[in-house]
Amino acid sequence: MNMLKKNDAIFERAKLVIPGGIYGHQSVKQLPKGYPQYFAKADGAYTWDVDGNRYVDYMCGFGTNLLGYRNPEVESAALAQLMLGDTVSGPSELMVTLAEQFVSMITHADWAMFCKNGSDATSIALVAARAYRNKKKILLATGAYHGAAPWNTPVLKGVTPEDRANIIYFEYNNVESLTEAFKAAEGDIAGLYATPFRHEVFEDAYFPSEDYAKAARRLCDEHDALLIVDEVRTGLRLSRDCVWSAMGVQPDLSTWGKAIGNGHCISAVLGSDKVRQAAEEIFVTGSYWYSSVPMAAALATLKQVQSSQYLEHTIAVAQHLRDGIAKQALAYDFELKQTGPAVMPQMLFANDPDVKTGGAWTVAMLKHGAYLHPYHNMFLSAAHTFADIELTLQASEAAFIEISKLR
Amino acid sequence: MNMLKKNDAIFERAKLVIPGGIYGHQSVKQLPKGYPQYFAKADGAYTWDVDGNRYVDYMCGFGTNLLGYRNPEVESAALAQLMLGDTVSGPSELMVTLAEQFVSMITHADWAMFCKNGSDATSIALVAARAYRNKKKILLATGAYHGAAPWNTPVLKGVTPEDRANIIYFEYNNVESLTEAFKAAEGDIAGLYATPFRHEVFEDAYFPSEDYAKAARRLCDEHDALLIVDEVRTGLRLSRDCVWSAMGVQPDLSTWGKAIGNGHCISAVLGSDKVRQAAEEIFVTGSYWYSSVPMAAALATLKQVQSSQYLEHTIAVAQHLRDGIAKQALAYDFELKQTGPAVMPQMLFANDPDVKTGGAWTVAMLKHGAYLHPYHNMFLSAAHTFADIELTLQASEAAFIEISKLR
Repeated sequence: MNMLKKNDAIFERAKLVIPGGIYGHQSVKQLPKGYPQYFAKADGAYTWDVDGNRYVDYMCGFGTNLLGYRNPEVESAALAQLMLGDTVSGPSELMVTLAEQFVSMITHADWAMFCKNGSDATSIALVAARAYRNKKKILLATGAYHGAAPWNTPVLKGVTPEDRANIIYFEYNNVESLTEAFKAAEGDIAGLYATPFRHEVFEDAYFPSEDYAKAARRLCDEHDALLIVDEVRTGLRLSRDCVWSAMGVQPDLSTWGKAIGNGHCISAVLGSDKVRQAAEEIFVTGSYWYSSVPMAAALATLKQVQSSQYLEHTIAVAQHLRDGIAKQALAYDFELKQTGPAVMPQMLFANDPDVKTGGAWTVAMLKHGAYLHPYHNMFLSAAHTFADIELTLQASEAAFIEISKLR
Repeated sequence: MNMLKKNDAIFERAKLVIPGGIYGHQSVKQLPKGYPQYFAKADGAYTWDVDGNRYVDYMCGFGTNLLGYRNPEVESAALAQLMLGDTVSGPSELMVTLAEQFVSMITHADWAMFCKNGSDATSIALVAARAYRNKKKILLATGAYHGAAPWNTPVLKGVTPEDRANIIYFEYNNVESLTEAFKAAEGDIAGLYATPFRHEVFEDAYFPSEDYAKAARRLCDEHDALLIVDEVRTGLRLSRDCVWSAMGVQPDLSTWGKAIGNGHCISAVLGSDKVRQAAEEIFVTGSYWYSSVPMAAALATLKQVQSSQYLEHTIAVAQHLRDGIAKQALAYDFELKQTGPAVMPQMLFANDPDVKTGGAWTVAMLKHGAYLHPYHNMFLSAAHTFADIELTLQASEAAFIEISKLR
């Protein structure tokens, strides 16, 4: 196991001044021993923990790193704006330029609103959808994560039944279940949330059928409800447009975050003209929603998305990793399921419900300088090179050898 | 009126790609003509709009500017961290150091959690208060602003009755009304939100009585409910501790934002040991909640709060402004009510319900290089100098002369 002496000492201090020492999705408390909690620096595809261990990082800040940590174009745009001002008594022109740029790139979008958390974006969409026809019910796929606000957080502690009184659940990728949910709402449907593909923790990832995506669009149209596609986790990593565009399905609202500022704090809601008036009538705001530095970073990110081969490169290196690991799993006789798109891989061992094998495998890789996750989907960035993948494949092979001994 | 040619051209573009052109609290659509919407830069106590007009800024980014825009210590700490990394796959040691620093400064606090929006902080407090004893009802003063989430946003469009089913309203600073609200909740009270002083738009600001603050504490104790003091707008600008500490009243939870990162995107919940377990049991998170740059900025801000005379200086210059304007109002025979603390002044003309006089006065000041608000509380920063106040008093005198002609 890597030396984590400084890490562990910081965590002891943390337990005194932060409930449980850490909260939320970046907690490593549920991960096996060996995962560092604190990082000292990041560059390109690499992170260094506080004890100086270096990793090829396959979590990419849980998806916020799209082009590489500290991408030069993004950082120089952010820095230039920081010299002028960040949070002022009004936005800068960048707010408008960024909206123009984003809207020009996403087929369904006629307008944009900017916020901070992914949950801000999904919650704005919720309020806007209800404002659209003054209807109340929201359709969610059971177990789908759309943020940590009371209407969707996966833990019910502190949440009241009233927070979810207007939520109707259905089974993802099941047209019959979706149709039933529309019926159950008795004409009071504001909107339906869709995830481009299914990517929950501890589960194999999968894409829905085209039938399902088209049924979602058709049912929304029949009920004059809004189709909201949540691209917070997927956005710009699978496509330069909404992911479902490839299936010919356009949402009315889409929600974005994580990758759009390449690590700078910004999220967004995009909408079509149909929802413009509703979006204008609601009141949503935040202290830093007009800050210019993250807008400069997002603009520089979107420009690279548009002009570079970042997507093709990320897909190619991700496929190389997937192929290499598949070959090794076969060679060492492990049934490892690699699901979801290669750029957002989920890797789960078969017959490993407590993730014991998966955990042992990823912990072994940490020692060899690769940071993978045993049960959460991972992320690749445009900064990952074929050389980084080779280094990772050395780590994964060593890890397969190590866990072979445990059988 | 100032030339706002570039500003107006940008706003025309904005109307195409942003619903209504602008949303939220930084919209100038409800302000009289003459207010710029877009700013090009900021430094110290000054902002420049996109047409090059310079203003002594009394909105201070709606309270996010505490020590001056681009404060050197804050910016150099932020920059140094930016060179290492911002949003990574885990927090840096700064998360713990910042929690230690903040907790050491605030009397009631034993722990801290960090988030992004003020609404994040008030919403975490809501969920934690409900988790504390598994109770549901939340007591809010009628009309008090605690953020733009559905349970509190001032506009009801898109909000459902269920979003507020567990909210009980009472009259601020009225012990009887508060007592009745506790009774109405029939033992199901999770928490009571308190604002250090009353600071709503279009209203004179005022401090509550000590009796009221103590009654709030006592009633919470009697019902084993939590007292939540919302310091998002007031925090660090009136005091180096919770504002009600001066009256001997300590909350169980306090919520912070705006000033704590001097413009960098961070907010916080502080809590006492009593609430630690509940805070640990809830699930709240956000994509950028572990970002290190705003934590570096907040740490540098808190250190200056602790070591400098920023507070005494801000109070002194603010009082100088208040005295000077009071003298001018008297001289030009206007009844101008300056309410709230001088560092967060509200300025409303008597018998001016549509803010016609107030709007004309502040618009006249814009021309003379001072940016004041006609109906929202304002903010002074530690970067405001006596020379800036003198310049502002020249502007306000010119404005009094101008509006005298309108009578």
